[in-house]
Amino acid sequence: MARIGLLIVLSGPSGAGKGTVCQALLAKHPELVLSVSKTTRQPRAGEEDGVNYFFVTKKQFGDAVAQQDFLEYAYVYDQYYGTPRSIVEEMLAAGRNVILEIDPQGAQKVMKTYKDGIFIFLLPPSGAELRTRIITRGTEDDASIKKRLASAAREVTQASHYNYVVINDQVDAARDRIHAIITAETLRVSRNQNIIQDIAEEVKG
Amino acid sequence: MARIGLLIVLSGPSGAGKGTVCQALLAKHPELVLSVSKTTRQPRAGEEDGVNYFFVTKKQFGDAVAQQDFLEYAYVYDQYYGTPRSIVEEMLAAGRNVILEIDPQGAQKVMKTYKDGIFIFLLPPSGAELRTRIITRGTEDDASIKKRLASAAREVTQASHYNYVVINDQVDAARDRIHAIITAETLRVSRNQNIIQDIAEEVKG
Repeated sequence: MARIGLLIVLSGPSGAGKGTVCQALLAKHPELVLSVSKTTRQPRAGEEDGVNYFFVTKKQFGDAVAQQDFLEYAYVYDQYYGTPRSIVEEMLAAGRNVILEIDPQGAQKVMKTYKDGIFIFLLPPSGAELRTRIITRGTEDDASIKKRLASAAREVTQASHYNYVVINDQVDAARDRIHAIITAETLRVSRNQNIIQDIAEEVKG
Repeated sequence: MARIGLLIVLSGPSGAGKGTVCQALLAKHPELVLSVSKTTRQPRAGEEDGVNYFFVTKKQFGDAVAQQDFLEYAYVYDQYYGTPRSIVEEMLAAGRNVILEIDPQGAQKVMKTYKDGIFIFLLPPSGAELRTRIITRGTEDDASIKKRLASAAREVTQASHYNYVVINDQVDAARDRIHAIITAETLRVSRNQNIIQDIAEEVKG
């Protein structure tokens, strides 16, 4: 019987570098499965449909909501983002470890549904660094940046509700810390009771 | 202010390979500190005083007990084994991560004292493998081996009280799994509340 996979939720404030770290993690550990979200927002330069997101219309998004096919979905900066439920659940049932890279608003909803999820909050090396990253992203006007800074400050304090915090001082280091967390979580006693029982039986001979 | 170090307790049944894995871990990660136990038993071939154990007389051991300088001590197979308390506590206060490599009897006592300890149970790849390792160790007579097998079977079931189980299928793999656990534990939100607060304050600007 395949062991149920881990649901790993990687979140953090806008500008913490979730996307970059997540791609580095998947590149080095291809056994992990990324849950691709659906969104109604426009693709940014270099983003591919079905890889970074499934880019859908508001009508298509609404239909999926009606069919209850979202693990969570959220309305952020005038756009919808959601995690398709059925794909994630199939992968977990098949024993695959699934990564959700989502914003804190979405992560909070998944916390309520998936108590067994592993919730990792990605932080920038410093608050000043986070300010800089948000300001220099350069895809938004001043009003949007102000909104994002205020939101980021609020979001950072939400880290307290997660299981782990990872500082994104260097992408490779952050990637390896996240992988260590995944390794450790697969070794938890609560996930290995069958193995313990089997070995105890065998020793008895 | 130095962060308090982690107390990592590595235990497991006799014959699981605790000593070998522990040495491999320390060789690769010299920042970890091994707590050297005191024992009244005779050194085995290759064991060094102050490295593997502090080899002491029963009188010396008794004096340390009287001075309450053991974190735990136990009487196993007619010999005393104990973890000197003061050295461990000094290292933890200095922010060092300290490894205790002790038998399950000792680990159970530490569990009661150190709720924040990380308890890792090392298992052989199979029960049959554990039987073979105990039988072929070759340092004991048949009666002792029988005693050890019965004890090992009981000990394996104790794994349920630990935080993690690590299968010792290959020494290097077991070493790396234990190191992943240590990395993950240092990233727990409960151990990083200060960092979260500091960053949140900075983002506010």
